[in-house]
Amino acid sequence: MNAAKRTSLYETVRAKARARFDDARGSHDWDHTERVLRLCLRIGKREKADLFVLKLAAVLHDIGRAEEDRSNGRHCHAEAGAERARTILAKHGLPEDLIVRVVHCIAAHRYRKAVKPETLEARVLFDADKLDSIGAVGIGRAFLFAGEVGARLHDKDIDVEKTKPYTKDDTAYREFLVKLRHIKDRMSTAEGRRIARERHAFMTAFFHRLNRETTGAL
Amino acid sequence: MNAAKRTSLYETVRAKARARFDDARGSHDWDHTERVLRLCLRIGKREKADLFVLKLAAVLHDIGRAEEDRSNGRHCHAEAGAERARTILAKHGLPEDLIVRVVHCIAAHRYRKAVKPETLEARVLFDADKLDSIGAVGIGRAFLFAGEVGARLHDKDIDVEKTKPYTKDDTAYREFLVKLRHIKDRMSTAEGRRIARERHAFMTAFFHRLNRETTGAL
Repeated sequence: MNAAKRTSLYETVRAKARARFDDARGSHDWDHTERVLRLCLRIGKREKADLFVLKLAAVLHDIGRAEEDRSNGRHCHAEAGAERARTILAKHGLPEDLIVRVVHCIAAHRYRKAVKPETLEARVLFDADKLDSIGAVGIGRAFLFAGEVGARLHDKDIDVEKTKPYTKDDTAYREFLVKLRHIKDRMSTAEGRRIARERHAFMTAFFHRLNRETTGAL
Repeated sequence: MNAAKRTSLYETVRAKARARFDDARGSHDWDHTERVLRLCLRIGKREKADLFVLKLAAVLHDIGRAEEDRSNGRHCHAEAGAERARTILAKHGLPEDLIVRVVHCIAAHRYRKAVKPETLEARVLFDADKLDSIGAVGIGRAFLFAGEVGARLHDKDIDVEKTKPYTKDDTAYREFLVKLRHIKDRMSTAEGRRIARERHAFMTAFFHRLNRETTGAL
């Protein structure tokens, strides 16, 4: 495929993906996809990934999200999205070898994943998607999501074993303790690790400060 | 009133107030009242306020919130709460001169207020309540509230004139630009100003960082 054809295909696929986010909620909306795309480009350039494959995978990576939400989590959005992406890409004439590479990135991007990222592009997408859960962005998303499910602002002594996620006793802090603070150790590219370390330090300082403010000490 | 009577009256009034928050949302729940109470004690001790009056005002300050929510904002929660507080305090035998002092704190605690805080205790409650909107706590509350109303995570170029509050285009950042970043200039006690300056600096750094993270620069 020449450069003009690639650009045209990318723009078409991007518009298709965008249209699937009209009813998406704030914590997993199209803005999230755009942030992941920007991080993919930044990390992908540094790691010398194939940016065409990566950009297609980035804009398509969450198109199975609505299916997962509708099925109350029974369908995995990474699997559903990978299938749907294959159909879209084939319909728009992407050669089979490139389809395989894009679809693998999508199938392997999930945190609790059955499919491991086997290619450089899949590792970049995995890192970019996880990086959007930490740092200042991650803090904002964790509280926004807590608000969406009617959860509590904070509980510094929260019992992470007993508290049910997505209930009124849940908090962004539980998500931090159980998941977000471990993300820096899950990165699979050097640039991803570098960004993660810095975002992690900020996020950890935030929750430490939040604990002190809520007791009235700060 | 002797010390034992005061303690018993305070505990009874506190329980009455607590019971009104069973259906409250995360951003204005009983936890908020408890954080405001802790800040009131910290600032009140430093400013040598009457802690009995202050504690009663703190636990009662948001009891009109449900009325404001039910009326879609037509009833002001400070006025409604002040009236309700007068009834509760009179019923439990607080002398009229103390009722007047507690009720004034509640009537004057609102940011967009008709009633100005005229006493030391009213100024302490005003500062404590506003301080809970800034710093790490304020950041968490702004995003939690955005999630509750189905708003967006972030838009660094948001048009604060055109964006309607409490809609899907709203963001915590609009609240920061329009209201939260000015709170440090509204403090009315020396200790409140000191705490506000420090919380303000952290909150400002957070949003600056959020803007850079969301463009992929950090």
